[in-house]
Amino acid sequence: MKEIYLDNSATTRCYEEVADIVRKTMLVDYGNPSSMHRKGVEAERYLRTAQEQIADTMRVKPSEIFFTSGGTESNNWALFGTAQVKKRAGKRIITSEIEHSAIGEPMKKLADLGFDVVKIPVDAEGRIRMDALREALTKDTILVSVMMVNNEIGTVEPVAEIGQLVRKTCPYAYFHVDAIQSYGKCRIYPKRMNIDMLSVSGHKIHGPKGVGFLYVDSRCRIDPIIYGGGQQNGMRSGTDNVPGAAGLGLAAEMIYKNLDDHVEQMYRLKEKLAAGLKELPDVRIYGPANLREGAPGILNASFIGVRSEVLLHTLEDRGIYVSAGSACSSHHRSGSATMTAIHASKAEMESSLRFSFSEETTEEEIDTTLAVLREVLPQLRKFVRM
Amino acid sequence: MKEIYLDNSATTRCYEEVADIVRKTMLVDYGNPSSMHRKGVEAERYLRTAQEQIADTMRVKPSEIFFTSGGTESNNWALFGTAQVKKRAGKRIITSEIEHSAIGEPMKKLADLGFDVVKIPVDAEGRIRMDALREALTKDTILVSVMMVNNEIGTVEPVAEIGQLVRKTCPYAYFHVDAIQSYGKCRIYPKRMNIDMLSVSGHKIHGPKGVGFLYVDSRCRIDPIIYGGGQQNGMRSGTDNVPGAAGLGLAAEMIYKNLDDHVEQMYRLKEKLAAGLKELPDVRIYGPANLREGAPGILNASFIGVRSEVLLHTLEDRGIYVSAGSACSSHHRSGSATMTAIHASKAEMESSLRFSFSEETTEEEIDTTLAVLREVLPQLRKFVRM
Repeated sequence: MKEIYLDNSATTRCYEEVADIVRKTMLVDYGNPSSMHRKGVEAERYLRTAQEQIADTMRVKPSEIFFTSGGTESNNWALFGTAQVKKRAGKRIITSEIEHSAIGEPMKKLADLGFDVVKIPVDAEGRIRMDALREALTKDTILVSVMMVNNEIGTVEPVAEIGQLVRKTCPYAYFHVDAIQSYGKCRIYPKRMNIDMLSVSGHKIHGPKGVGFLYVDSRCRIDPIIYGGGQQNGMRSGTDNVPGAAGLGLAAEMIYKNLDDHVEQMYRLKEKLAAGLKELPDVRIYGPANLREGAPGILNASFIGVRSEVLLHTLEDRGIYVSAGSACSSHHRSGSATMTAIHASKAEMESSLRFSFSEETTEEEIDTTLAVLREVLPQLRKFVRM
Repeated sequence: MKEIYLDNSATTRCYEEVADIVRKTMLVDYGNPSSMHRKGVEAERYLRTAQEQIADTMRVKPSEIFFTSGGTESNNWALFGTAQVKKRAGKRIITSEIEHSAIGEPMKKLADLGFDVVKIPVDAEGRIRMDALREALTKDTILVSVMMVNNEIGTVEPVAEIGQLVRKTCPYAYFHVDAIQSYGKCRIYPKRMNIDMLSVSGHKIHGPKGVGFLYVDSRCRIDPIIYGGGQQNGMRSGTDNVPGAAGLGLAAEMIYKNLDDHVEQMYRLKEKLAAGLKELPDVRIYGPANLREGAPGILNASFIGVRSEVLLHTLEDRGIYVSAGSACSSHHRSGSATMTAIHASKAEMESSLRFSFSEETTEEEIDTTLAVLREVLPQLRKFVRM
């Protein structure tokens, strides 16, 4: 049975070329960049190349790219590192109601530590309410952190607009963007968008797991959260993960090479899937009504009357892999923050599935998925209604 | 020119089998363990297997193994995680004068935060002075952290004896061991040695870079330092690094399979190298005089009158890779804490090299290294004395 992998927002398959460079840096150029001899120098060159590859995609300086163990560490570092440096300047930290738990959980910790964490509500399509944000931006705000693309329903947040507002009203606050679901899916220019820090994860862009980066504008100072040998300019200690960084750099270069074509292709597939779903009874699609205002790779829909897990496993039996809510937090069995924030009903929440594409997703796969849904939904509905 | 890699304490070449499993989990079994479908379940199985492989080497429970991004994160987590949980019970934290910067630097931070960090001195061979430790262990001690094998001179610390002492005199203190240079080089049984937490790094045992683990005894509670999706029982969030964990688990299993033979082989090579060095003029060897009381894979010696860097690069020209001090902190140009603690002179410090072996090191490589040293040292000494 051919696999149809529509869970690319949970994780992606690595590019073959990424697997190759990881292998090479594990078996041949395996030196420690901190070593003074040639094998160390060689290894360090991989890090510099990776920084350049990533910096090129966003028109920033290579020295502004810091490697981490992934998106979650990048987010934690941006938040705690800023809070530590700026705690004497103010206590207010602003975020949204629909952040991933890799922002939500550190924010809870910051609230415990005495910071005044304010969560801005969103509209019915998941868009941050600018009027509420404007009101919340007081003089003692030290940090604003919002996601660029929501991981559950694909809403694209008005990051450039928020950046401009923060710069104008709170020039001393840092603006952090969780770009884990947007990097590699759209153009991101931190300088133009007034973004001070930006988190990215390798495994969401066909790069390796266990590696990510935090972009930190050279004018910003944040504290480390991991101390030691002083690697990465003292900002993130620990033996440099050369295979991870090299793989991430290459994946970044590759995913941005034909970005426009891939994005167009994904939007077409999303439109096709949405059109097919709309023909089915009792389906509700989330995120922007204009599909092209949402992320190209994410479509979330509820199949009222059928529990997510039941439909997920039914699709799995046909080789189709999708997600019930956000896979990154599937261990949390509490309701989704995003679905709650957009006022989805209990019935909607319990029956929602996320389909997420990559550049490798094909039209045939979408056709098959729709055909399977058309076949199984009536049977499942009959069953649960008995 | 054949490479002679004698810098295995900085990093090791991966086992081919490790590179294979990393590749497989990047390209075939690439799922996210948090996903509910089959690809997620498959991926999770790799994590469970890796935990079992590691737990088996130390006779502990698989659930006591937590994956991190490497030894530095493991160390930081053990220290900050304990300090956070126990800060109300006491302020005293005890460590040694010769720790790696991945312990030394977080300790500085803890001192800044108001903890009473006490550094125990060592004897001339680098061994922690038990009398000083006994005196320092007051009732308000919450944590004792020492390394098992010193990364610069290979001294083996009396960890079991320290564990017993801590358990007896401060039953509420946690005992953490930095085992980054000892795991895979000797048998470590945390339960018998009264070790509560133990840090290990993947790339020192022919495993991948960017991954390590922290063993945490199931009776201990420490706080996370990275918050998010609640992976690893809520102790360490972030998408699980399946390739890293799978590679680390396999490397652990492989390195412990023929441990005794490999250790015996490394001791013989160490004795051979030491005997050869002793025939050269103006050489001083550090660590235990009885070589078998030190680590099997580390020999540190000074070549008085020849600067480390000069000799290092001369050897490099012949394809021999060694380290000047500890590669993990070569970016720090301040003097080595270990060399200072054992009262090495400035001339000794400036001329010291570390030779470090792995199970792949051969007798022929040691012969060649000694031959090259015999040839180049007189020339270099003539040069610097002009």
